[in-house]
Amino acid sequence: MYRTNTCGELRIQDIDKIVTLSGWVQKSRDLGGMTFIDLRDRYGITQLVFNMESNQELCEKARKLGREFVIQVEGIVRERSSKNPNRATGDIEIEVTSLKELNKSKVPPFTIEDDTDGGDDLRMKYRYLDIRRSPLQNNLIFRSKLALETRKYLDIQGFIEIETPFLIKSTPEGARDFVVPSRLNAGQFYALPQSPQTFKQILMVGGMDKYFQIVKCFRDEDLRADRQPEFTQIDCEMSYVHIDDILNTFEGLTKHLFQHTLGVTLPDFPRMSYDDAMKKYGSDKPDLRFGMEFVEMNDFAKGHGFGVFDGAELVVGICAKGVSESYSNSTMKELTEWMQRPQIGAKGLVYVKYNTDGTIKSTIGKFYNDETLNEWKEKFGAENGDCLFILSGETEKTRKQLNELRLEIAKRESLMKNGDFKPLWVIDFPLLEWDEDSKRFHAMHHPFTSPKIADIPNMLSGDHETMKNLRADAYDLVINGSEIGGGSIRIHDRALQAKNFELLGFSKEEAENQFGFLMGAFEYGAPPHGGIAFGFDRLCAVMNNQSSIRDYIAFPKNNQGRDMMIDAPSLIHEEQLDELNLKLDLKKND
Amino acid sequence: MYRTNTCGELRIQDIDKIVTLSGWVQKSRDLGGMTFIDLRDRYGITQLVFNMESNQELCEKARKLGREFVIQVEGIVRERSSKNPNRATGDIEIEVTSLKELNKSKVPPFTIEDDTDGGDDLRMKYRYLDIRRSPLQNNLIFRSKLALETRKYLDIQGFIEIETPFLIKSTPEGARDFVVPSRLNAGQFYALPQSPQTFKQILMVGGMDKYFQIVKCFRDEDLRADRQPEFTQIDCEMSYVHIDDILNTFEGLTKHLFQHTLGVTLPDFPRMSYDDAMKKYGSDKPDLRFGMEFVEMNDFAKGHGFGVFDGAELVVGICAKGVSESYSNSTMKELTEWMQRPQIGAKGLVYVKYNTDGTIKSTIGKFYNDETLNEWKEKFGAENGDCLFILSGETEKTRKQLNELRLEIAKRESLMKNGDFKPLWVIDFPLLEWDEDSKRFHAMHHPFTSPKIADIPNMLSGDHETMKNLRADAYDLVINGSEIGGGSIRIHDRALQAKNFELLGFSKEEAENQFGFLMGAFEYGAPPHGGIAFGFDRLCAVMNNQSSIRDYIAFPKNNQGRDMMIDAPSLIHEEQLDELNLKLDLKKND
Repeated sequence: MYRTNTCGELRIQDIDKIVTLSGWVQKSRDLGGMTFIDLRDRYGITQLVFNMESNQELCEKARKLGREFVIQVEGIVRERSSKNPNRATGDIEIEVTSLKELNKSKVPPFTIEDDTDGGDDLRMKYRYLDIRRSPLQNNLIFRSKLALETRKYLDIQGFIEIETPFLIKSTPEGARDFVVPSRLNAGQFYALPQSPQTFKQILMVGGMDKYFQIVKCFRDEDLRADRQPEFTQIDCEMSYVHIDDILNTFEGLTKHLFQHTLGVTLPDFPRMSYDDAMKKYGSDKPDLRFGMEFVEMNDFAKGHGFGVFDGAELVVGICAKGVSESYSNSTMKELTEWMQRPQIGAKGLVYVKYNTDGTIKSTIGKFYNDETLNEWKEKFGAENGDCLFILSGETEKTRKQLNELRLEIAKRESLMKNGDFKPLWVIDFPLLEWDEDSKRFHAMHHPFTSPKIADIPNMLSGDHETMKNLRADAYDLVINGSEIGGGSIRIHDRALQAKNFELLGFSKEEAENQFGFLMGAFEYGAPPHGGIAFGFDRLCAVMNNQSSIRDYIAFPKNNQGRDMMIDAPSLIHEEQLDELNLKLDLKKND
Repeated sequence: MYRTNTCGELRIQDIDKIVTLSGWVQKSRDLGGMTFIDLRDRYGITQLVFNMESNQELCEKARKLGREFVIQVEGIVRERSSKNPNRATGDIEIEVTSLKELNKSKVPPFTIEDDTDGGDDLRMKYRYLDIRRSPLQNNLIFRSKLALETRKYLDIQGFIEIETPFLIKSTPEGARDFVVPSRLNAGQFYALPQSPQTFKQILMVGGMDKYFQIVKCFRDEDLRADRQPEFTQIDCEMSYVHIDDILNTFEGLTKHLFQHTLGVTLPDFPRMSYDDAMKKYGSDKPDLRFGMEFVEMNDFAKGHGFGVFDGAELVVGICAKGVSESYSNSTMKELTEWMQRPQIGAKGLVYVKYNTDGTIKSTIGKFYNDETLNEWKEKFGAENGDCLFILSGETEKTRKQLNELRLEIAKRESLMKNGDFKPLWVIDFPLLEWDEDSKRFHAMHHPFTSPKIADIPNMLSGDHETMKNLRADAYDLVINGSEIGGGSIRIHDRALQAKNFELLGFSKEEAENQFGFLMGAFEYGAPPHGGIAFGFDRLCAVMNNQSSIRDYIAFPKNNQGRDMMIDAPSLIHEEQLDELNLKLDLKKND
């Protein structure tokens, strides 16, 4: 080894030891007769000291070292006269007796410090320098620990980690596949998996009973912020289970992970139906760190002559605590405009302020007198100092708009507190989703999700309106408003699976061609089974109160799907294309 | 849950408990008034009993169940009158009180038993049935345990598991890449990684210090038996290390794995130079479970008038113990013909038998008298009953041929014993390999391998003959004649890396275009580093004395790179090609 100790290891009890350290020059200070160097590695920073008087040559050598030079030093551990309580090694320093320069460094294009001055592009291009910064290192270490704890827990629960293939078959349903041309099978293509869904179900048919895998998945989507073409899932499947068995098992996993990586003890997770979540929060992934539960107002807000409400399918509001004084007229105007942006599309925003002095100020005073508004106050559980925000319109749309407002106010009021974790199971999702554009049903989760047993007769009935109301044994795990995981009990009966494909608009041939192997497997003794998949990148971010997954991925791609460091994708040789029986066919507008 | 217990769990102390089990009907026997069913799951087999007298209806229902039907039963645990000591649950049976058929099964195309009657193709197509067989289940469970133990050990050693990207850049050197067309970057392609080599080095430049990953890698090669287009590596890299640090760390890992999965305690691993391995065994991956070390005979076999030996660059032999009587003339003829096949290409095979009665029989008695042959006996440490086999010719070729013979005799004499593990580090590999066909050097390991420090001046000298003799800090871990892992200390200096690319025939532009990011990274303080990669599939197989990796992979591909179960690769839609700016260009002879 180039070292006897790491740069994070030495303490006061090591004094007088002769040690060898290696690392990067973090910074260097010349103080007349002395030169101090902070030597850094993954484990910490140790101060080196060179003395002009006792060893001039060595000290001069040290003074020539630039930032990020790689050096190896031998020296004696000494107690520091001025200790640094903010650093684990702050009680000691190394009196260097010999110094070897292992490698030089150009001046980095941004500073290697906790808060760097590098922009996104620069940080992506020089990812190796970005990774040298401790926030990123800590993220990657956290991720590694989270993966290991996942494996330890699932192993103890009897799960077997099984690798499923990456070169599989393209299924044009759902998101777009990345495809891989086959050289040995001319004109044919593999696809990279969007998830190991069918394989894990096959493993259940194969009797593996409890499967998991931490695995890369791929989707060729137009990249929005914080989407990556390759991402990681904790993918799980169990046989002979009902929905409760799965929720309990993976609630256990989640609690274990919080306990063993963050030291946070989570309480039992509440469960909420999809319908309730939409009704109370306008979202299937409500953030429960704060209240502002929706209050539906049709019963008491209609019939007062206010046409906007009277003509609306739904009148619904939330109560924002303690903002009546702080939200000025201009704030209200700004909020209204924010809600009216096309992304949200509210027509307007009604508010009722219950001022601390007992007066009421609202945008609808013309239609509702104070007595009525005081009745509302009661219905909302509001107090003086609070403010109601009310929207109206078509039910689904209005709920979504109010959800956006609820989140925006929570942000403004700092109600999303770091370290506060509010997990939630959302259950009883619809089986099918009607798509007006394509005039067909889509699977809300995926085509393998089982309807609730009670709903199977309805499913077979074939009535269109009934189809919209079918409920599935599907569930999502939501933490702080982020969907962390989702899954379902699966269909394990060939006929029911065929029926589901039919409802989703597959022809018999398409279903057979794409998923014939799975339906075939169902004919050879498929057990009841179900599972879940966690978004691993997202889980890392949410557990650390981060909104972006990018810094939990060692080598992320940018919004054009490019790896800026290695400059991929790139052109390939004509011979490569030729071997693959392909020709480029670039459109003129590209 | 559909069960209170698994089928492998109940014991004599559970008698009289009311239990629910679920599983597959392994087999069913009707014995007049009784019906017995063996119920199977991943955990074992439990006998169910149905009594015609006590419950006729239930018993008749049970008699209708076919093999591999999925059922759920409730019943009472009873002590068996005739116990089965070969089965963990053999002391008990379940007196069934209720039975539910969860799913039916067609008659499987092969038997779900330890020794199946299914051929390879059938087993691949119905992989879910093959996986139901316990040998395959045990393989997958072993693999999962091996992966977990790898992670536990490396975690304790301070390694961080970091995921590197799958969508990277094509580098036409080395094996052929699988490529992935990019839709967002028209005309450009990603490549699937053949290994995370450059990324793990980048992580060392990034200061991660100790990296590992159990990761899929991809090679688009013409598939030989027991090669897979996707395979799994334990991939590792460390900073600030010399060769000994790496060998010790991963010898530790290997010992840990054998201890914690097989209960086998391995002794310290011997180390052997590449030159010695070639000289003594004619192979860089010698199987040390048996002797038959080569004895070079130039000194004493030449000059006796036997032209074949006298004109040969090398005369070399092995001593096969105790075969002089059992290897008849026809065996010798057969062995000679086996050696003369084009795959091996020996001109002939000389043997000297030292019979148990003290006589000598050889094919070269005309040139060597008994006195001389008795001197040879001593040089080989042979005894009566042994037989020498001798080859001669060009050194490298002759060694390789004798290696084949050594392995063949070991096979015939059953010297490769199950449960006998002989690990070995082969070190000091050549840096470069001269390829006569292309008239250029290839990297023996890969282009990032560092020459030994002492050899760097020679490397810079540029003399062709010297280049052939450069030694690298490269090493392989060999167990029982299989290469399990390989790695090297890497170059971490930009100039040296550029020089190596130059020696390997890269133009400056090619080197910059393909590996510019790595050489760039070396300019910003790259630490000394090195690593290793283990073939995980192979390790699984070797630890279980299996020659094929295929049954340690849940869903392997066949020799044409096809997944027989899902029938991939396959055609894709015209629109998919169109979106990717590609056209098929099928050659007429395809």
